[in-house]
Amino acid sequence: MRLSSFFMPTLKETPTEAQIVSHRLMLRAGMIRQTSAGIYAWLPLGYRVLRKIEQIVREEQDAAGAQELLMPTIQSADLWRESGRYDDYGKEMLRITDRHDREMLFGPTNEEMITDIFRAFVKSYRQLPLNLYHIQWKFRDEIRPRFGVMRGREFLMKDAYSFDIDPASARRAYQRMFLAYLRTFARMGLKAIPMRADTGPIGGDLSHEFIILAETGESGVFCHKDWLSLDVLKDAPGFADDLQPFFDRTTAIYAATDEKHDAATCPVPESDLVSARGIEVGHIFNFGTKYSKPMNAVVAGPNGESIPVEMGSYGIGVSRLMGAIIEASHDDNGIIWPDAVAPFDVGLVNLKSGDAETDRVCADLYAKLQTAGREVAYDDREERPGAKFADMDLIGVPWQLVVGPRGLKTGVVELKRRATGEKEELSIDAALAKLAG
Amino acid sequence: MRLSSFFMPTLKETPTEAQIVSHRLMLRAGMIRQTSAGIYAWLPLGYRVLRKIEQIVREEQDAAGAQELLMPTIQSADLWRESGRYDDYGKEMLRITDRHDREMLFGPTNEEMITDIFRAFVKSYRQLPLNLYHIQWKFRDEIRPRFGVMRGREFLMKDAYSFDIDPASARRAYQRMFLAYLRTFARMGLKAIPMRADTGPIGGDLSHEFIILAETGESGVFCHKDWLSLDVLKDAPGFADDLQPFFDRTTAIYAATDEKHDAATCPVPESDLVSARGIEVGHIFNFGTKYSKPMNAVVAGPNGESIPVEMGSYGIGVSRLMGAIIEASHDDNGIIWPDAVAPFDVGLVNLKSGDAETDRVCADLYAKLQTAGREVAYDDREERPGAKFADMDLIGVPWQLVVGPRGLKTGVVELKRRATGEKEELSIDAALAKLAG
Repeated sequence: MRLSSFFMPTLKETPTEAQIVSHRLMLRAGMIRQTSAGIYAWLPLGYRVLRKIEQIVREEQDAAGAQELLMPTIQSADLWRESGRYDDYGKEMLRITDRHDREMLFGPTNEEMITDIFRAFVKSYRQLPLNLYHIQWKFRDEIRPRFGVMRGREFLMKDAYSFDIDPASARRAYQRMFLAYLRTFARMGLKAIPMRADTGPIGGDLSHEFIILAETGESGVFCHKDWLSLDVLKDAPGFADDLQPFFDRTTAIYAATDEKHDAATCPVPESDLVSARGIEVGHIFNFGTKYSKPMNAVVAGPNGESIPVEMGSYGIGVSRLMGAIIEASHDDNGIIWPDAVAPFDVGLVNLKSGDAETDRVCADLYAKLQTAGREVAYDDREERPGAKFADMDLIGVPWQLVVGPRGLKTGVVELKRRATGEKEELSIDAALAKLAG
Repeated sequence: MRLSSFFMPTLKETPTEAQIVSHRLMLRAGMIRQTSAGIYAWLPLGYRVLRKIEQIVREEQDAAGAQELLMPTIQSADLWRESGRYDDYGKEMLRITDRHDREMLFGPTNEEMITDIFRAFVKSYRQLPLNLYHIQWKFRDEIRPRFGVMRGREFLMKDAYSFDIDPASARRAYQRMFLAYLRTFARMGLKAIPMRADTGPIGGDLSHEFIILAETGESGVFCHKDWLSLDVLKDAPGFADDLQPFFDRTTAIYAATDEKHDAATCPVPESDLVSARGIEVGHIFNFGTKYSKPMNAVVAGPNGESIPVEMGSYGIGVSRLMGAIIEASHDDNGIIWPDAVAPFDVGLVNLKSGDAETDRVCADLYAKLQTAGREVAYDDREERPGAKFADMDLIGVPWQLVVGPRGLKTGVVELKRRATGEKEELSIDAALAKLAG
């Protein structure tokens, strides 16, 4: 992408309305634009990152055996009356009346709808286990939306729903999602700690929140200090393995949200206990028959008996993850994207747009890097070098390749790693080999 | 994907509520499930196809120089008051009040919002031309939703918006989308005819609808019979070329929707005129300053003067396209997917699941085809061969590879092309070479 024609409205000033660094940087980098309180448009740079995050989530859900579908945003109120949650959900649920005066709502979650789809088609235990997920825009009418995409009203969520014949099978489904979540967040460069958590309006008795430690986090959390140095996926099993030992040894290391933590009964001595703030990026629930019983989602068992299915649900805040990643990875100059979610792989900086030789070398590098499958942000704008360096640091592209007339006299370009600031001068071919190899 | 665990609830009976073949086949193939009137969940098979259609649309928009972003579904009513359309739009617009009693709406289209984003950031003619698009779920509260996803209430749409400094540049933007649309539909195996069209509530004076001829189409259309045999993209230019000659020679061949057609002034002799039904899959508009003037979307011109931008908008009915493709490509046994949008490349039919040798060969073929990058629906279910053939024809996978104990005795498998019904017996290696090569 040539930045001369890319719609990336970076800001020089720091927006005053943004209280946390991820919100400030997303606004400054031209990634989002607020269109109403807690509602954002994703500008091209932001949307590129969002789609990468979404794709990692998708790949790990697929690897875990979940199947993707897509449910609609607008749901019938009647479904929610069946489960008894229509009145429970309160004002966070955006209620709508259609032109025929039917009561509808913009879905804040999908337990009811997926249960309705399930019961329409699945009649036998032989069709189980089943795990269905979607990645979908949801709406929760937060009373005080804040922190940009971290607590917005319209947000992108991955929610999966598992259906099993008995509690033992449901536990295995839960453990597969537990592992999938750890793998998902690790691929984004995030250290997420699974913490025993309250189940809230979803229900059930087994639940973990996946928490990124961050000073700006909204949740108070507690964990054993071992979590700070733990590589949780070291020696992790695959999805086809028995996950019980992995699940047991991981959850044996204490970690709990403040709703679940009780200083009086906490097994960790105070000297080993970390009290911190955290950002919730995922939440998984095993809630048994809470929805299947009232909604009559039953299957025929091996002897023809009618069995309400055991269910769980598994959410990831896809749009929120972008804020969490930035909170975890930035410096004074801007965002430092982990490679896997970076909007571009390489930022190509032309120090003197209009200089024939510099333009020629840049155009050649741009073409070759793209041919090699690299996504390149080519800054061909007529701007001062300082402004180009500042923007490239701000948008956080992992590699910066700097080309100017002075270096070209001796055939060298400069390669900078955004994360470390390390720079090296090398020949054009060596730079190409390093970035495209 | 092993069909034994794939959530693909095919139906044997023909659903009585479906009036047109695409709706019937999508229900029978387990692709969609209606959740409310005109609102559908996309089951895994349907969603696979929808994502392929979406990706083709995206690639052609990108190739034409448009940039992807994503605007939210929920919009502020105030924006629509600025353009004067809030009252005009009528009951098709789903109006919502949030918890703070602010008037909102579920967007039926995005001219106002994109104009608001534009005016916030673009201040100079040097930042033009610009074309921004998104692929987004929209809601129009149709009074009588019907024909499945063809006229649903919640639907997926690609809408692009162009911004140019003067009418000549805006015409070029229009022509690029005109070409992109022809390329997009052709990649899906569709013959779309661009027809002079009314502009309706979007406004403007230059507009084309892209129409697929089909008996079940909702629109009456007229075109010169030359369109029936025309390969419109033969000798088509590239996006970087001057598109005027191509646009002129293509639009010179008469085609108009019935709102635009007037028998009294039609230049085509009756013997050359085709009167038919059609499905609208795209609609493009050049509407000048209709939104930029009332919303004050102006840029500074070369001499510092304030110039309202020239705009156009360009829609493709992404979810509707699935219905249109099926209307255009099916037979009595089911859907015949064009390769580019097929949910799987190959259907692998195991004629005797449980037979050790057949299972072994199938598992080996399944693995090798996947390694070669093919998407495979492997029917490993314990079903009669007849049921497997029927389902494979129904879901319309382009190639069927049939493996059974009888053929394996002489080392052969059967390969069937869904579109033509042609079958050939060949060795396992030859089949692999043909499908994976």
